[in-house]
Amino acid sequence: MNRTPVEPPAMSISRITAMSDGVFSIAITLLVFNIKVPDLKPHDVPAGLPAAVRALWPYLVSYVLSFIMIGVYWVGHHNIYHHIVRSNRLLLWLNLLFLMCVAFLPFAAALLGRYPQAQTALIVYGSTLICTGLALELLWRYATARGRMIRGELNAGLVRQASVKILTIPAVSVLSIALSWASPAASLALYLLVPLLYVMPNRLDGYWTRPAPQESNVSVGVKTGANRPMP
Amino acid sequence: MNRTPVEPPAMSISRITAMSDGVFSIAITLLVFNIKVPDLKPHDVPAGLPAAVRALWPYLVSYVLSFIMIGVYWVGHHNIYHHIVRSNRLLLWLNLLFLMCVAFLPFAAALLGRYPQAQTALIVYGSTLICTGLALELLWRYATARGRMIRGELNAGLVRQASVKILTIPAVSVLSIALSWASPAASLALYLLVPLLYVMPNRLDGYWTRPAPQESNVSVGVKTGANRPMP
Amino acid sequence: MNRTPVEPPAMSISRITAMSDGVFSIAITLLVFNIKVPDLKPHDVPAGLPAAVRALWPYLVSYVLSFIMIGVYWVGHHNIYHHIVRSNRLLLWLNLLFLMCVAFLPFAAALLGRYPQAQTALIVYGSTLICTGLALELLWRYATARGRMIRGELNAGLVRQASVKILTIPAVSVLSIALSWASPAASLALYLLVPLLYVMPNRLDGYWTRPAPQESNVSVGVKTGANRPMP
Amino acid sequence: MNRTPVEPPAMSISRITAMSDGVFSIAITLLVFNIKVPDLKPHDVPAGLPAAVRALWPYLVSYVLSFIMIGVYWVGHHNIYHHIVRSNRLLLWLNLLFLMCVAFLPFAAALLGRYPQAQTALIVYGSTLICTGLALELLWRYATARGRMIRGELNAGLVRQASVKILTIPAVSVLSIALSWASPAASLALYLLVPLLYVMPNRLDGYWTRPAPQESNVSVGVKTGANRPMP
Repeated sequence: MNRTPVEPPAMSISRITAMSDGVFSIAITLLVFNIKVPDLKPHDVPAGLPAAVRALWPYLVSYVLSFIMIGVYWVGHHNIYHHIVRSNRLLLWLNLLFLMCVAFLPFAAALLGRYPQAQTALIVYGSTLICTGLALELLWRYATARGRMIRGELNAGLVRQASVKILTIPAVSVLSIALSWASPAASLALYLLVPLLYVMPNRLDGYWTRPAPQESNVSVGVKTGANRPMP
Repeated sequence: MNRTPVEPPAMSISRITAMSDGVFSIAITLLVFNIKVPDLKPHDVPAGLPAAVRALWPYLVSYVLSFIMIGVYWVGHHNIYHHIVRSNRLLLWLNLLFLMCVAFLPFAAALLGRYPQAQTALIVYGSTLICTGLALELLWRYATARGRMIRGELNAGLVRQASVKILTIPAVSVLSIALSWASPAASLALYLLVPLLYVMPNRLDGYWTRPAPQESNVSVGVKTGANRPMP
Repeated sequence: MNRTPVEPPAMSISRITAMSDGVFSIAITLLVFNIKVPDLKPHDVPAGLPAAVRALWPYLVSYVLSFIMIGVYWVGHHNIYHHIVRSNRLLLWLNLLFLMCVAFLPFAAALLGRYPQAQTALIVYGSTLICTGLALELLWRYATARGRMIRGELNAGLVRQASVKILTIPAVSVLSIALSWASPAASLALYLLVPLLYVMPNRLDGYWTRPAPQESNVSVGVKTGANRPMP
Repeated sequence: MNRTPVEPPAMSISRITAMSDGVFSIAITLLVFNIKVPDLKPHDVPAGLPAAVRALWPYLVSYVLSFIMIGVYWVGHHNIYHHIVRSNRLLLWLNLLFLMCVAFLPFAAALLGRYPQAQTALIVYGSTLICTGLALELLWRYATARGRMIRGELNAGLVRQASVKILTIPAVSVLSIALSWASPAASLALYLLVPLLYVMPNRLDGYWTRPAPQESNVSVGVKTGANRPMP
């Protein structure tokens, strides 16, 4: 029995996505730890706690915003890996570079929650989002250039369209950073558009609505088992 | 080879549940970090540590309570995804909205542990549970309406019964918030009923007790492999 | 096609173990966050940092000890779920009870690292280990009683032998708590025996050394695929 | 039906790698929590925040460096487990020993971020990397000695070459610790070479570029399903 045909590359892809999912879920869940419980003296609690909790609103805005941003990149990463079937060292490190940016977001979010009106915080936040987006675009370009890491014939239009989606958050972030010189509040508000852009359905959603293979596994047979998505 | 038949939607479901499990397990494990080690000066330790540790009891109550609450929502989410076989962008974002509420619970739990007698803490805690429950119900309604994302024929009674279960914690939370005007202690105590409601067996438990496919895999054949639940 | 034969129970087991693995890996990795970086003023660093780092040794002992304890329970949990093939609500909640104890260990470890000589810390640490062990034993007893949740014929001797292993840490902890009245140092030292007991090979290790199915998958055929362990 | 042929060992391997991936992803994501948001009084923010954020650069260097180090060990661990198909108690504990070192890295990184010029911090950081590398080498040696835990015929050259790769970081760390007596800055700079060594392609990369089994699963048949890498 020769050892060639069966293994490592698929394992690479599945472990890369599993690794990435781990980083995503930890980064997104840890965002809440940027919201600190107010520390009041016992006799200040009855009068002071409601106001102290209300004063946490910038942290809450930062939490919701950053949760959505990480969510958007998670979905984007997921969509990209739907097409990638091969891996190599460089792809792995581009993926780690991307994850390094994603894992940095909780810090940027904490800074923004603490100083929502400070331009420095807005610049750090925007720059983190820009780096994250550029890293993902780099990954996507590298994987798709000359069909390097992808499955079969990928439509050139789809490749471009995905790039446009990937670069939307960086583009918004550039605008937001520029706006921060004029008005920090407007700069922050601009980010609230991002969820609207992503939650609305769009042309890339074609395959989401097809029935899952579970329903037709008899006819597809063994192939379904072999093609089983990795967790 | 055309690209239609085999993949993405199932992958979506499996990565959605994997992502969700990640958030659940992180949120539930991080609850303990709300319990801070008392900080005593060396010469105070022999006399002061036992009392300082005993004084942590509200944090412990909040820990146990919140562990159970997240556990209940985890089981509920798991049960819901047992029926969901299709996915789309909106479902994904409803799932992220739900996770955003789940991931917020450690903060609400920390606030409650720090100020167990303060109405503000009880309101924040209850509101978080209400939002979490409503997000899950929204997800369930969206997925089951007109059989949108589910497998085959789902009994209307089961859909309603699941909604009742999902909305139990929000209902208890509304009561508990109302009670907090009268008595914070009674309000807190009310939550202790929740575990009793969920740990007791109930009518939805039918399928739990059937033997696992492992035992009959020869006769079920390839189908079992293809239908293998994703982690 | 009727919906009866194929799914949920296996999914339950696989999601239960995935959930548990999540909690284990988070709890074990977060132990290091109990070791705080010393906070020195710049001009104190050259002279003071070496001593300040050396003074962290109790935290390091607590880290290593607790890493091993969680590791032991992880392996124990894994071994138990090797036999469990069915699940029900009560089993799920016994599992969550066990995880609640596991997730509490980082706090007990932090307390012990901060106050290694304080009896209170030793009692809290030992009690946490006792609760964790008893919860696992409860899970094991419930699952194996009258063959309730297990696969086929499980040897009564193996059931008993596993219980003995599960209860070893609780037994050591009881001794250690008792010893803490006489000597906190001896009490702490006693825990260092635990790794020795578990790292050494023993009679339950039979199956570990058999070749993995990968090597013989042709003859085992489709069964191997269906029996694929869940991650 | 006898219980011998089908399962546990493979499950062991898959759960060992899943457990390890969990620890890796948590440790790598938590690195960012070593970067603390500067705490400024409101009237100091406009003038003070930019400088306070710039002053965080040692933490950022430590973050990037440690992210890469954990990434390198992650890839190394992944590559090793590509060959391991059997498991026993000792291998499991060698793996836990390795993970204990990996999980310790966030502390070493925090210390280095806080005291980038202090020799103590450089020694702790280097020693952690050395222990991590030695634990991985021990695991590799134990698994490959006399073909103990590996699949079929593993080329002796590959075994040696992998050891060389594994021991590169420990070797750099020994040099770096030695250099720290002369110049802490040079010692720190030396680590920046590590990414260059690992990101560049090398002779072990052979299998990464082969097409994934998904593309040829029909001809490979059931074997592919059985050989499916575990997540």
